Amino acid sequence: MNDTANDTANDTTSALLAQRLQALLDDKTKPRGSLGRLEALALQIGVLQGTDRPVLREPQMLVFAADHGLAAQGVSAYPSDVTWQMVENFLAGGAAVSVLARQHGLALTVVDAGVRHTFAPRAFAPRAQLLDRKVAPGTADASLGPAMTAAQCALAIAHGRAVVSGLPGNAVLLGEMGIGNTSSAALLLARLAGRDIADCVGRGTGLDDAGLARKLTVLRAVLLRHPEAVDATSALTAFGGFEIAMLVGAALQAAEERRLIVVDGFIVGAAIVVAAAIEPAVLAACVFAHRSDEAGHGLMLAHLRAEPLLRLGLRLGEGSGAALAWPLIVSSVKLLDEMASFSSAGVSTRSDG
Amino acid sequence: MNDTANDTANDTTSALLAQRLQALLDDKTKPRGSLGRLEALALQIGVLQGTDRPVLREPQMLVFAADHGLAAQGVSAYPSDVTWQMVENFLAGGAAVSVLARQHGLALTVVDAGVRHTFAPRAFAPRAQLLDRKVAPGTADASLGPAMTAAQCALAIAHGRAVVSGLPGNAVLLGEMGIGNTSSAALLLARLAGRDIADCVGRGTGLDDAGLARKLTVLRAVLLRHPEAVDATSALTAFGGFEIAMLVGAALQAAEERRLIVVDGFIVGAAIVVAAAIEPAVLAACVFAHRSDEAGHGLMLAHLRAEPLLRLGLRLGEGSGAALAWPLIVSSVKLLDEMASFSSAGVSTRSDG
Repeated sequence: MNDTANDTANDTTSALLAQRLQALLDDKTKPRGSLGRLEALALQIGVLQGTDRPVLREPQMLVFAADHGLAAQGVSAYPSDVTWQMVENFLAGGAAVSVLARQHGLALTVVDAGVRHTFAPRAFAPRAQLLDRKVAPGTADASLGPAMTAAQCALAIAHGRAVVSGLPGNAVLLGEMGIGNTSSAALLLARLAGRDIADCVGRGTGLDDAGLARKLTVLRAVLLRHPEAVDATSALTAFGGFEIAMLVGAALQAAEERRLIVVDGFIVGAAIVVAAAIEPAVLAACVFAHRSDEAGHGLMLAHLRAEPLLRLGLRLGEGSGAALAWPLIVSSVKLLDEMASFSSAGVSTRSDG
Repeated sequence: MNDTANDTANDTTSALLAQRLQALLDDKTKPRGSLGRLEALALQIGVLQGTDRPVLREPQMLVFAADHGLAAQGVSAYPSDVTWQMVENFLAGGAAVSVLARQHGLALTVVDAGVRHTFAPRAFAPRAQLLDRKVAPGTADASLGPAMTAAQCALAIAHGRAVVSGLPGNAVLLGEMGIGNTSSAALLLARLAGRDIADCVGRGTGLDDAGLARKLTVLRAVLLRHPEAVDATSALTAFGGFEIAMLVGAALQAAEERRLIVVDGFIVGAAIVVAAAIEPAVLAACVFAHRSDEAGHGLMLAHLRAEPLLRLGLRLGEGSGAALAWPLIVSSVKLLDEMASFSSAGVSTRSDG
């Protein structure tokens, strides 16, 4: 078969499997459709795994961290040193994502994608590990030139792919840390979705009104500085950061391996915008964990035609939203697997049907 | 001190504790307020427990089941026998709430509040038990007279209180089963919130348009049949059901004991409408798990000034939404307890503050 015939055969197989999964869900002891979003989720995971008995194995929480040269322009409420300090906090078990990963039994891996700091060798907490995939100690300042070189961008994507392919399990939860990275995410969204930067920019970790105005001015200038960066890879190269590029690689690899991808918030979402522009099939593997309070996130989710699971007013990043959504995803698969059917449980069906 | 002075002293203590909890949350290694709804939740649970170190112990999933005489008027898509069949399914472990209770380590107790069926003695699944608190085999038909007598209503409330006070732990998740009980819930909401029944009625387990129109006609007639049922207890007596009355008692008792109450969907919400009309302080103990797709639920939550945690298009009941929200509630307490502070983790605070 040629590729087109192969794709058509795959589409038919998927459509039949989706039908089979929906029939299984409809036969569970509940009114049809009454598990709402969880039914669509179970169906998505079944189709992704190519089975009517999907299982989730050894979920991996992956947090990519890097610094941003653009932070020198005062686009964040926090200093860049917070990036490496928070990496230490992830590893010591005191950050939100550490607490949530423990709660849900998620293996936590922190990847130094380009933090401006040299981490001392040390004994880490048993549930977390640090991988050194540092491309450079922070990106260049995107207001002065491209955030990274084409070679750095390719290396970061390759690292992201390799990190995922080296992990066990069939689900990855993606998170990030990087002071200044809501700026990169807003720039990528504005350029790749063709929207005004004013609709994409938000307060990040908590800018006040003056800070937000300054951030907007800086980001407008960055966009003008890089008129040539119109496709996904060149936009990623121009605007950064290393953690976002590695997230792009991680998502591309995970989707190819048919691993489930749990997408955290605005920054991981920006990586998915890039990855989906490179390979639209990535979206079939993605579950969008939540809609955050970052201003551009609603627009981003609409651009991706994504329906997030949670809306809790979060604006933390790290992967915290992905971790919070994880038990709902587990529930969807368990309900499909463990619920009785009308016939097996001896429950009457509708009086009218 | 007299009661008023006591209340004032308690209010001051609570306000100081809330301040202390907010200060603890603000010192965690995250931007202020960035955990959104989970911060308000941790604060609520701390104030409820009267401590800045709240803990959740031995959570109890309580499912009250009963039948409704009004079901004879064709207000549900399913026959009344589904009530007892689903009770068996809860106990055998095959219902949605059984699966979710197992997933989250919730002890599951099913209470026969008034099911029209005699349950045979049997060995139940180790995680679930059935309590016989049957007031009568189903309520009377509320279109012909009151659903229950005043004595039955008082007995059901007393049973609900006793069931809760006999349980270990400091959190109850409330659920229900009863073919026809969205009708009782809609009637209670319409009468106690002073809203048109058309705004309160929904498709329940899945009525079609004709079924919904019929249900609305029946419920209008029931309201006209009971013009005297204007206060909480008389409305509960007139409209039923036994499971809702027991839920009212369970909520009143749990709030008095300062247990956290996780409120499921539309029917448990109706019990909270009744309980809060009797004792408004009940609401301080309540977490509203989700907004369901049942038509009147949005109006009900607005009436209660409640902000639900989830919105997943659920319309199943049983307590399934409460169980799904449980890990978020656990997260809120764990984040307060386990996250590092800026000083303990050596993380810099905002550059501007």
